[in-house]
Amino acid sequence: MSSDNPTGAPPSGLPDAVAQLVAGITAPDAAAAAAAAARQDTLTKPQGALGVLEELSTWLASVYRTCPPPPIRQPELVILAGDHGVARTAGTSAYPPEVTAQMVANFVAGGAAANVLARSRGVRVTVVDVCVAIDWATSGMDVPEGVYARRVRRGTGAIDREDAMTRHQAEAALALGVDLATERVAAGADLLMVGDMGIGNTTPAAALVGLLAGLEPAEVVGRGTGIDDETWMRKTAVVRDAMRRGRAVMADPLALLATCTGPDLAATTGFLLGAAAAGVPVLLDGIISLSCALLADRISPTAASWWRASHRSTEPAAAAALAGLGMTPLLDLGMRVGEGTGALLALPLVSAAGDLLREMATFAAAGVSDR
Amino acid sequence: MSSDNPTGAPPSGLPDAVAQLVAGITAPDAAAAAAAAARQDTLTKPQGALGVLEELSTWLASVYRTCPPPPIRQPELVILAGDHGVARTAGTSAYPPEVTAQMVANFVAGGAAANVLARSRGVRVTVVDVCVAIDWATSGMDVPEGVYARRVRRGTGAIDREDAMTRHQAEAALALGVDLATERVAAGADLLMVGDMGIGNTTPAAALVGLLAGLEPAEVVGRGTGIDDETWMRKTAVVRDAMRRGRAVMADPLALLATCTGPDLAATTGFLLGAAAAGVPVLLDGIISLSCALLADRISPTAASWWRASHRSTEPAAAAALAGLGMTPLLDLGMRVGEGTGALLALPLVSAAGDLLREMATFAAAGVSDR
Repeated sequence: MSSDNPTGAPPSGLPDAVAQLVAGITAPDAAAAAAAAARQDTLTKPQGALGVLEELSTWLASVYRTCPPPPIRQPELVILAGDHGVARTAGTSAYPPEVTAQMVANFVAGGAAANVLARSRGVRVTVVDVCVAIDWATSGMDVPEGVYARRVRRGTGAIDREDAMTRHQAEAALALGVDLATERVAAGADLLMVGDMGIGNTTPAAALVGLLAGLEPAEVVGRGTGIDDETWMRKTAVVRDAMRRGRAVMADPLALLATCTGPDLAATTGFLLGAAAAGVPVLLDGIISLSCALLADRISPTAASWWRASHRSTEPAAAAALAGLGMTPLLDLGMRVGEGTGALLALPLVSAAGDLLREMATFAAAGVSDR
Repeated sequence: MSSDNPTGAPPSGLPDAVAQLVAGITAPDAAAAAAAAARQDTLTKPQGALGVLEELSTWLASVYRTCPPPPIRQPELVILAGDHGVARTAGTSAYPPEVTAQMVANFVAGGAAANVLARSRGVRVTVVDVCVAIDWATSGMDVPEGVYARRVRRGTGAIDREDAMTRHQAEAALALGVDLATERVAAGADLLMVGDMGIGNTTPAAALVGLLAGLEPAEVVGRGTGIDDETWMRKTAVVRDAMRRGRAVMADPLALLATCTGPDLAATTGFLLGAAAAGVPVLLDGIISLSCALLADRISPTAASWWRASHRSTEPAAAAALAGLGMTPLLDLGMRVGEGTGALLALPLVSAAGDLLREMATFAAAGVSDR
């Protein structure tokens, strides 16, 4: 895991509660990881032959602080939904803004891609409206109040020309993300995934990665939900302007979030820090969670050791964020759905890595000759 | 799928039963595939956003001849075990030859990597001794007679200087593979995987790929179970000599199998053709099944449409075989275990592709606005 914050001191401007949280993040258990690596070499397969799964099993041992790691019993996905002003003002998406709310209702009804994958994998899904631009009460859509009770605001400012939110709202959104992770862990979750839903949300994510990875707008702007060349040019101009506005406040994470992201991205950042503070591993998803992981890694260089990359989405900013985090994803399937779908698809590989370390026979026990 | 046999006529020298089987292989259902592709575009996600899984779902629809495809209810793995003369005469492996039999006992006891993955995925495992060089009765190992009752021979000739087996044995092994696939399908299997176990078996596989893909020995010889430089040079010389012997009989698949492979590879080839003839899809595994798939594709250019690549192993011959088959694997995890472990790891992705096509809500049903 790379970090531009080698001293480990949190950046300035963090709320006291977040600064305290960050100070309390400890590294996973190196001794358990070493025991796992040693155990791999006793199992009935050629040394190193399980490839990436061997390294994954040592990570599981380290985050669960025991070798072999226990089975993953309660994996959970939290989907953070939000609208983005630029989708309306600049038309940066292939889909109309009302799709965000409609998809929240689709999650509640169980019809989205993330629901299908979560069902077959025994994953509980929590959907949270962080900043959807809708009045649910008059929408005619059947969404429980619990989904939107903690909404930070409706939509965001258009980040090419105004702040996404106030500093106070960014602080509230960051705290909401921390709380959500903490609550799921208190409810028994032993592995967390964080997904996204939000028309326009790849625009702030691209701006955030562009700023943190030091890349040009054209290097981080992708096709999102499938935009055409003209929309891509418009989106790139928006990202350029948002980056210009964000560059002035880069040393202050909260100001950066407020200036050019959105409450959903701030909450995702808080979620990742909250999970690390709670000592629970996270499977990252696509561009939204990766962009927030890149920021959270600047806030706490220890936190990233609690996260694993699940897949490489087709968004160029996702690849840039992965490189910035020094992470190699488990899957590369040309996907760009979001919602946590990449993490859900990778989950059986993570479980398998632990199963193999725990259940395979050793050379000695099976009476198999070693080399 | 590529093929150097564009006429579709089976090569000469095939036994009548195999020629008849090959003639009966039909293509999967193109209409169901087209319906699946059309259905993907109605589901609540950006068009094409599921990437490789969308194409995988159309393949499932085509092999199950219906859209959406049914759930995979009885996936099965058959592990074909065999010893190879060169492991003893030329020392081409990092492990001693007795490990093949010991690992068969490990499969029976449920302690191998394939067993662990099969258990968590609900996959039935059948282990078949095709050419293990052991006398089970006096071995002191607890292996049921059913495992070895149909053994074709004990071990193989050292293929750098003598035939692996007689033509009659190659015919018997090919038929055994066909029968095993047919039997599992008759027992209800709706997706097949074929794994391998055999100290020395990457040597004939490399020779086979070298011949069929037109590559030099040094391009197809890998580190197998983890051999050192000296062993690699010895193995490459063996592959060179085996390829020289095999090149003379390349037009006759049965002679090619007899000259420079082994009964286990012949049975794997038969298994792949048998599954295609039975109209049941196969998830290929690593270098052994890929080398046999390359040969089976020469025997029947239609058969390959029933197979999918699961993973890219670290063996260079595996990558060459994948290129020859025109297949892109689902996973690339640096693995080189064999046994069917790559196929088992990819299985949840295949299931997920079908689940998504079958269970996701459409834009219309969910009331989500399309682009």
